[in-house]
Amino acid sequence: MTRKAGVIGMGHVGSTVAYYMVTSGLVDDLVLIDSNELKVNADATDYQDAMANLNYHTNVTVNDYSALADADVVVSAVGKIDLQEDNEKHDRFVELPFTKHAVYEVAAKLKEVGFNGVLIDITNPCDVITSLYHEFTGLPYNQVLGTGTLLDSSRMRRAVAAELEVDPRSISGYNLGEHGNSQFTAWSTVRVLGEPVAEVAAKRGLDLAKLDEDARAGGYTVYHGKHYTNYGVASAAVRLAATVLSDAHTELPVSNYHEEYGTYLSYPAIVGRQGVVEKAHLSLTADEETKLQQSAYYIKTRYEDTLAELTNQQPNRISNTSLS
Amino acid sequence: MTRKAGVIGMGHVGSTVAYYMVTSGLVDDLVLIDSNELKVNADATDYQDAMANLNYHTNVTVNDYSALADADVVVSAVGKIDLQEDNEKHDRFVELPFTKHAVYEVAAKLKEVGFNGVLIDITNPCDVITSLYHEFTGLPYNQVLGTGTLLDSSRMRRAVAAELEVDPRSISGYNLGEHGNSQFTAWSTVRVLGEPVAEVAAKRGLDLAKLDEDARAGGYTVYHGKHYTNYGVASAAVRLAATVLSDAHTELPVSNYHEEYGTYLSYPAIVGRQGVVEKAHLSLTADEETKLQQSAYYIKTRYEDTLAELTNQQPNRISNTSLS
Amino acid sequence: MTRKAGVIGMGHVGSTVAYYMVTSGLVDDLVLIDSNELKVNADATDYQDAMANLNYHTNVTVNDYSALADADVVVSAVGKIDLQEDNEKHDRFVELPFTKHAVYEVAAKLKEVGFNGVLIDITNPCDVITSLYHEFTGLPYNQVLGTGTLLDSSRMRRAVAAELEVDPRSISGYNLGEHGNSQFTAWSTVRVLGEPVAEVAAKRGLDLAKLDEDARAGGYTVYHGKHYTNYGVASAAVRLAATVLSDAHTELPVSNYHEEYGTYLSYPAIVGRQGVVEKAHLSLTADEETKLQQSAYYIKTRYEDTLAELTNQQPNRISNTSLS
Amino acid sequence: MTRKAGVIGMGHVGSTVAYYMVTSGLVDDLVLIDSNELKVNADATDYQDAMANLNYHTNVTVNDYSALADADVVVSAVGKIDLQEDNEKHDRFVELPFTKHAVYEVAAKLKEVGFNGVLIDITNPCDVITSLYHEFTGLPYNQVLGTGTLLDSSRMRRAVAAELEVDPRSISGYNLGEHGNSQFTAWSTVRVLGEPVAEVAAKRGLDLAKLDEDARAGGYTVYHGKHYTNYGVASAAVRLAATVLSDAHTELPVSNYHEEYGTYLSYPAIVGRQGVVEKAHLSLTADEETKLQQSAYYIKTRYEDTLAELTNQQPNRISNTSLS
Repeated sequence: MTRKAGVIGMGHVGSTVAYYMVTSGLVDDLVLIDSNELKVNADATDYQDAMANLNYHTNVTVNDYSALADADVVVSAVGKIDLQEDNEKHDRFVELPFTKHAVYEVAAKLKEVGFNGVLIDITNPCDVITSLYHEFTGLPYNQVLGTGTLLDSSRMRRAVAAELEVDPRSISGYNLGEHGNSQFTAWSTVRVLGEPVAEVAAKRGLDLAKLDEDARAGGYTVYHGKHYTNYGVASAAVRLAATVLSDAHTELPVSNYHEEYGTYLSYPAIVGRQGVVEKAHLSLTADEETKLQQSAYYIKTRYEDTLAELTNQQPNRISNTSLS
Repeated sequence: MTRKAGVIGMGHVGSTVAYYMVTSGLVDDLVLIDSNELKVNADATDYQDAMANLNYHTNVTVNDYSALADADVVVSAVGKIDLQEDNEKHDRFVELPFTKHAVYEVAAKLKEVGFNGVLIDITNPCDVITSLYHEFTGLPYNQVLGTGTLLDSSRMRRAVAAELEVDPRSISGYNLGEHGNSQFTAWSTVRVLGEPVAEVAAKRGLDLAKLDEDARAGGYTVYHGKHYTNYGVASAAVRLAATVLSDAHTELPVSNYHEEYGTYLSYPAIVGRQGVVEKAHLSLTADEETKLQQSAYYIKTRYEDTLAELTNQQPNRISNTSLS
Repeated sequence: MTRKAGVIGMGHVGSTVAYYMVTSGLVDDLVLIDSNELKVNADATDYQDAMANLNYHTNVTVNDYSALADADVVVSAVGKIDLQEDNEKHDRFVELPFTKHAVYEVAAKLKEVGFNGVLIDITNPCDVITSLYHEFTGLPYNQVLGTGTLLDSSRMRRAVAAELEVDPRSISGYNLGEHGNSQFTAWSTVRVLGEPVAEVAAKRGLDLAKLDEDARAGGYTVYHGKHYTNYGVASAAVRLAATVLSDAHTELPVSNYHEEYGTYLSYPAIVGRQGVVEKAHLSLTADEETKLQQSAYYIKTRYEDTLAELTNQQPNRISNTSLS
Repeated sequence: MTRKAGVIGMGHVGSTVAYYMVTSGLVDDLVLIDSNELKVNADATDYQDAMANLNYHTNVTVNDYSALADADVVVSAVGKIDLQEDNEKHDRFVELPFTKHAVYEVAAKLKEVGFNGVLIDITNPCDVITSLYHEFTGLPYNQVLGTGTLLDSSRMRRAVAAELEVDPRSISGYNLGEHGNSQFTAWSTVRVLGEPVAEVAAKRGLDLAKLDEDARAGGYTVYHGKHYTNYGVASAAVRLAATVLSDAHTELPVSNYHEEYGTYLSYPAIVGRQGVVEKAHLSLTADEETKLQQSAYYIKTRYEDTLAELTNQQPNRISNTSLS
């Protein structure tokens, strides 16, 4: 029935997601949504101005939620990066006062049109917003995902790769937890050159703490250099969308719901057409397990607070019984 | 020897060119240059943060002109789009006071490192800047090209395609002349559905003047909606770069030097590894020929004025005898 | 709902079609059908042995017609190339005694499972077999296509391109009629370097008849060198499938039904998700028009003879009222 | 300087390698070599007949060794699969009496033209032939590689993936040693779902020996179903070529020289533009280490015997001092 995707929020990230989709022929139908009509029409026309010179054809629709009824995948890139301007700690929660309302509306509209595909959330704070999307769309947990630490993991892999002069795709391993300040590299999961990274580090005098710092610093380099970040996260989202579309059952560290932690958080999952189809099981160290629990707790409490606030404002919201 | 490209100027357009190259695996080595160190490093890191999730690997180098010595192709995307802010007529010449100095410097550096590949200019005003690049790099005419009306032609094809519900790639034909206000659609060259567009228009009551307007209006929609345009022109530039790299000998309407008009202007040329390897010959109508001459004259005089200004400022510039 | 394609007949051509689909990530679900169980399982396993090294994931199903019920596109590559061995005239009709029965069966099974996508026929003799597919599947004309002279046109474009050292994609124009001995290059439709090919030929002393011969001779070179042809025709079929999947509305010379000639024959059509969505209108020369009518008559009579034979054998066939 | 590759030996495998390269736009210049002039010209023409319908342009040259002087990568797919016909044990050494002479000639010609890129050997018996290529081309060890167990590893990953319903790309781990009967899965290196495969197997009652058997049986399914295998191995070779071209530094289990074993054998290496740029270090079990030594010994002795035979026949061969 051909591939259909939606991108909601055409800022730096959403428009980059859409451009990558258009240039790579990933989807046949692409639905772009943004409350800024001028911007979304500008991008749509700009993609169409590219079509005569591209290898693939994509049909672009603008601001029509009903077109998402039969979409395979919807990417939420709603955001307000300006809110980060004076945010020295780079806490992604500064965007929440804006994004929580935005996703409430988006979710309601997706629910209204009967969207039943996979929702991929990039909007920050990623894990809380992904939780809200689950709550407000009424979609089952497995169909609502966040890009989460798929980006943090690539940053870690980039840092390790640069140090060892190895393709980042040949570094395996994960950053876990919140896509935010409480995330951490689970070094016990990282392998390179055939060995656990700790062994390589010992032989070569690598400082893992410094690599962790490099990975984070990279994100700041990007943000400070241009006041937003887009290419890394958009690439992660498109990879995730491609994984869903082709039902590839690829293992990816994305934000997904974990009953044992009672929250969405990033942990490797097997992703296919139904979203999360299975979960990996990592043998973390005690320290990593503690960090993960702390990160989970942080997300969970922030989510509960946010949900309470939102539902007080919206007391007639139909209870989503699947949350219990 | 693997494919090496440079992108000079990492604004909206240059960074999009580089992202498309990175996601499509077009080049092996990518050299990014920008006087804004923070921005170019931000983009480079952002691409590298994407690498673990991409299908292709690209080696990225930042702000090293010497790395361009053996580049196959360099794309100039230097610009200062802010200069367009209060420019109601959308005249690309408002950028010239900035860009003419910028390209003088860029050209000098390319010459200094011995760059001998194909230079693709996107920087506006495109035809004048392409002429300046030819003059200041000392490269032969065929190795210096501008994206020119490759973009205007795709806009025209987009407009015709939308009206007739046909793939823009199945509309043939060209916009010619200046990539600017004097460009025009050479309707006599446009074919669709097996026929000259005029015949299709006659049968279906299409108004070609209106389509021309739609094509232009699209550009304004893009610019007004986001204060820059990037996806259409970046896609044109990447297609052109791919054509050069694969020595494809594809016919494309790009800005290239025409001795009979004494200037660079857009007219279909056969493009390969050496840049322009041959030129098409169109049987234009008398009216179209007049428009082309007017457009040529406009470019030529603006170029001569600009060159005079620049060389007065730089009287010791070594004369480029190939210009005659 | 993701992209699903079927390939029926896993000989040299069908397996190449499937491989191109798998390596390019064109489809999510690929259903392979062949009466030779060993061969189709061999190819399926071979593709799966490739998957760990590919950029895309494809789910492969073997010999399950029911999986085609919701396929977007099915490619028929059923054939028996051995029948060509002693066929000096290279008449594709030598395969008919085998293929006519094969497609009768295939069509019945597609009908039985309720396939309602677009059927792309490569099986030879292409136009007669495409007609039979239309008849026996009960699908509307627009949903049944043959690759037809999309291949002959690329051979012509290859020959002209080689002579002029131009990208074959920059040669426009068509071979028309039967994908067989009565096909011809409609030189009046061929354009290159901005001009009708006849003008280029006149200027440069090209002999169009010789180019025609080169185009045909190429096919013989391929067949004689390996006793089958696969890459050219498979590439044409995959392009056609991609055009259908993305609803691109691309103009392609494929075998499609023409009421005025009362038969399937190759003539440029606009192809999208519903198959043929519109037809081009060429201004052929009188001579070309005559050739096209002769080619049409040849296909039509061969088709009628074949249908009569088959229906005598199968007198209880449900009449397809859409044929009238 | 654009990407140039050669494919030597245009049988089932070589022609598939070339087709994948052509359809994916991997290289700009492709040089095809085969002693069967009719076959290589047939394939070259068939690719060219595809070009008008492809997304990329590739320049194809036939049977010109001198064109390989500046090639980045050459793939050897010389073989004589017919020799396998009555080979019940599927020992790849049955091809050696033919291939050893063939590669001697090929190597001499590559040396003569001064080829100094990376040579990727698919020709069987892979490790012995790769060793011969090293010996006879005079290229340094790092520039001569064999696809080796990159294929066996994908077969293992395919088998594990099928059992666990996980993307084969999400199974890590290696088959090691000879690309032949003495190869083995180093199960201690295999990880899936976040854990060592042994733990997953224990939990789910998987029988690793059976999976090993499935992986091998897959190869037989392919061979018995069509009397050759091509898609899996061609995909491995193209991935390897792409890794070299983009200098990706990807970790791949390929046949490379190991001083400690005194022979070529498959073991994960980091591959880039110079071929092998670094080697992984696996912590194998004692049993795996023994199997690897046995496999190494087998390759080494077969290679020494073969070399002795060939050099007796060719006593004036110039000694390759880099071997010592």
